[in-house]
Amino acid sequence: MAKVNIYVTPKKGILDPQGKAVESALHSLGYKNVENVKIGKFIELEVTGHGTSTSSVESSRVESQIKEMSKKLLTNPIIEDFTFEVVE
Amino acid sequence: MAKVNIYVTPKKGILDPQGKAVESALHSLGYKNVENVKIGKFIELEVTGHGTSTSSVESSRVESQIKEMSKKLLTNPIIEDFTFEVVE
Repeated sequence: MAKVNIYVTPKKGILDPQGKAVESALHSLGYKNVENVKIGKFIELEVTGHGTSTSSVESSRVESQIKEMSKKLLTNPIIEDFTFEVVE
Repeated sequence: MAKVNIYVTPKKGILDPQGKAVESALHSLGYKNVENVKIGKFIELEVTGHGTSTSSVESSRVESQIKEMSKKLLTNPIIEDFTFEVVE
């Protein structure tokens, strides 16, 4: 079993209205020294059945599955970037 | 200036309907080996005006500001946990 963390962020140059809204809200609360707020998604999941993550063949299978799932469902590749790490 | 990443996750034991929905969607797409999907938020922001992050006094000020902002606005402490790291 592999535990995977996936970080999804708005692409550079793409408008991030949620980030802008949070930034103004922070300014209204008095935190005027906060800039460039960007809000993305943090996805944790477990992948089983690829054997132990110590084997490099198995871990590359996990990685290619994660990339495939991210492109197909977890992110919108037109407006979002993603990175991931296998944590366990 | 300090760059900060904040990771917001649903608390253990709290229902995560978004995670459940994504998990079933992944299963329908054929990824039956995926379990325990949890969806949270990934917030990137920059904090200025606390001096360089090399000074430990300044970096502890950044940290306490981040904790305060997270509790007040960025997370719902009743149903969400958060962790953060100062990345630069």
